[in-house]
Amino acid sequence: MSHSVKARIKALKESSRVLGVSTNEERIDLLGKVAAGLRRDWPTIRKANEQDVAEAKEQQIGAALIKRLVFDEQKLNEVVLGLEQVAALADPVGKVLQRCLLDDGLILEQISVPIGVIGMIFESRPDALVQIVGLCIKSGNAIILKGGSEAKRTNLALVESIKQSSRGSSLGDGYVTLLESHGDVKEMLKMNDEIDLLIPRGSNAFVTYVMENTSIPVLGHSDGICHLYIDEQADLKKALPVIIDAKTQYPAACNAIETLLVHASLVDEFLPEVGKALKEANVTIHGDERTQAAIECIPLEEGDYFNEYLSLELNIRVVDSLEEAIGHIETYGSHHTDAIVSENPEAVRRFFTEVDSADVFANCSTRFADGFRFGFGAEVGISTTKIHARGPVGLDGLMSTKFLLAGSGQIVAAYSGKDAKRYLHKNLSVDAPSLVQGGSV
Amino acid sequence: MSHSVKARIKALKESSRVLGVSTNEERIDLLGKVAAGLRRDWPTIRKANEQDVAEAKEQQIGAALIKRLVFDEQKLNEVVLGLEQVAALADPVGKVLQRCLLDDGLILEQISVPIGVIGMIFESRPDALVQIVGLCIKSGNAIILKGGSEAKRTNLALVESIKQSSRGSSLGDGYVTLLESHGDVKEMLKMNDEIDLLIPRGSNAFVTYVMENTSIPVLGHSDGICHLYIDEQADLKKALPVIIDAKTQYPAACNAIETLLVHASLVDEFLPEVGKALKEANVTIHGDERTQAAIECIPLEEGDYFNEYLSLELNIRVVDSLEEAIGHIETYGSHHTDAIVSENPEAVRRFFTEVDSADVFANCSTRFADGFRFGFGAEVGISTTKIHARGPVGLDGLMSTKFLLAGSGQIVAAYSGKDAKRYLHKNLSVDAPSLVQGGSV
Repeated sequence: MSHSVKARIKALKESSRVLGVSTNEERIDLLGKVAAGLRRDWPTIRKANEQDVAEAKEQQIGAALIKRLVFDEQKLNEVVLGLEQVAALADPVGKVLQRCLLDDGLILEQISVPIGVIGMIFESRPDALVQIVGLCIKSGNAIILKGGSEAKRTNLALVESIKQSSRGSSLGDGYVTLLESHGDVKEMLKMNDEIDLLIPRGSNAFVTYVMENTSIPVLGHSDGICHLYIDEQADLKKALPVIIDAKTQYPAACNAIETLLVHASLVDEFLPEVGKALKEANVTIHGDERTQAAIECIPLEEGDYFNEYLSLELNIRVVDSLEEAIGHIETYGSHHTDAIVSENPEAVRRFFTEVDSADVFANCSTRFADGFRFGFGAEVGISTTKIHARGPVGLDGLMSTKFLLAGSGQIVAAYSGKDAKRYLHKNLSVDAPSLVQGGSV
Repeated sequence: MSHSVKARIKALKESSRVLGVSTNEERIDLLGKVAAGLRRDWPTIRKANEQDVAEAKEQQIGAALIKRLVFDEQKLNEVVLGLEQVAALADPVGKVLQRCLLDDGLILEQISVPIGVIGMIFESRPDALVQIVGLCIKSGNAIILKGGSEAKRTNLALVESIKQSSRGSSLGDGYVTLLESHGDVKEMLKMNDEIDLLIPRGSNAFVTYVMENTSIPVLGHSDGICHLYIDEQADLKKALPVIIDAKTQYPAACNAIETLLVHASLVDEFLPEVGKALKEANVTIHGDERTQAAIECIPLEEGDYFNEYLSLELNIRVVDSLEEAIGHIETYGSHHTDAIVSENPEAVRRFFTEVDSADVFANCSTRFADGFRFGFGAEVGISTTKIHARGPVGLDGLMSTKFLLAGSGQIVAAYSGKDAKRYLHKNLSVDAPSLVQGGSV
């Protein structure tokens, strides 16, 4: 049905205005109906998922992918809980971000507004679909979903359930649509008048392809090449569990580390201990020359520092200074998440200041880089772009702003030339009701 | 010297780190040196500008363009004052935007950081160059400047002065470079690893060309098709001067109106008055059928609503309702700046809520859409993109963010599975010193 994709997206753009001007109460009501609907339609959803999983097994798709594809009762409970949590978050729409009295009776406000139409291209996890829809409803954004083909039956059952529940709400079901064929992605990339933001999640090659083939703004990250630096003045009792967690707690995650940087002073005593612990955790080590001299490992090859292993493999490099560690991260990193272990406040301060990544951590695991762990309720992904949202993206990253200016007949000519009136530019509290809510002029 | 553009931009990227980690005091000192240097080098700059202006006159370039090109002593005084004002603004770097206690001893902060390397492609006004350099210094961003060829001598003299002054500061002159040939733009558009944000200013066609030919994020606007709607319940004594100001105070500006929407109830009494005032201001009116019946005007042609006249021409359309006015703006507008004149609070509320533009005004001129008038000190331009900065872009729009997480050995595994620790997610005040400044863990 690729010929109708354009028409469907244009229709979605139209109906995005309904959600965009809705109240928090209406959006909370809709989230509740969607959550209840998923339980109501659970038999259908389960059956669809069983068929997807059966087909994936027939096609001998890898066990890791199948694990992500499974949508069982536990996942159902998780996504329903997630919808309830997102519903309970503060209303992200219409927040007053700045307020300034430009002159008597001339009030400027910057308020938060939904971005409009989000195009989300995601991987095989059906639970991600529900999470994303929940965040978009709460933030007042319409959503175009394009899921992986291996989850097509599950995604369709989920979206049909969501749409049916939505038709029973005051906001209707026009805010969400599911694209099903791979060719639809190409259509999406061209619709810069209708789609305000693209969030691709998937392989590096795919995300890079999206970024290079559209003039629509793109939020996301291709690589997740994360580093952990163990400083000369590290507390080694803290360092060891952090290393193991950052590499092994979930090696396929983008925020797991690919390279461990160790200060030269720690080679003799600490590095053997690290090697032993990593071996016990089944981690394959790719070591530079000084690492090779200290512990058993595979010699590092040129290019390994650019590898995102996404598996139980780890580069280890010995560095002579904090500067060298920061320089390494600048050269080889992807500006995603990088951490230092150090008890030296000045080393931590320099690491915080000089490492130019979305997430910069001290004395904890890189695996904390996540919207849920950060307290955002959920996330649509992690962004490494320097503009708009950077790092884990929750509701705030799905918001835009607009400036409201309320006057009583003011004209610019009165503030120009000789005898020009002067602007007051007096900052006002953002806690008063906004101009939209009848805030006074 | 196009062959060396890549090398120069790469070098700039390197030295951008010096500015990026500088203190507010260092940046204020640099701004002061740059301002003093412009006065010191004034004879050279004036001579260069006189040559540019003479050449432009020889080439019979239009008077409006020549007016923009002139950089006289008054302009010098203005830009020096502007640099001093920007220096005095609050430090935009390192502001704590969010702070949250994830768990005991595990503090998350989101702080503001410079975007990095800004690529600015601008029009013929040399004073814009100084303003942009000032905003970039204050915000800690390195800057690649590509000015119009008609201002090439002036731009070069300005940048040489700025660089000489900078070499006498602790931050050096590595943060700024001027590209001179048109071919350099093509090189810039490909350097997505080095340039973090492009801000093109110029013709619609040029801005659209930039947006479609780069994967670097672009901030800006192509069209400025702005509207003013005179509501049924407008105070007509306010409406008339606002109409004249919005169209004629500076017709070449992007925030001047191109179409006036008038409620049908105002056709008989008010529209003739509007027609008379516009005629006195030398404005040519393109009217729809009902306007033609009421006043002298040129009949509107298909497509006129999409015209950005940038001159003393104005469309007038009669509408039957607020909905029709909002619908017109949605259909033909460019989401830049749109205004309503109305004494009806509900009409204003609906206009504020439903008009999806960067700037939405009530009872004042659209010409207020400007960074200086908004109190931002200056602006690099006006953005109509829905992500990152929207509306006039001052220092805030030149900032990115990063998340800092400071712990004491925490690992994610402790918060997973059975016996998982619970997150506290307790929001803390953003007014305490940041983690970078030694805020406590």
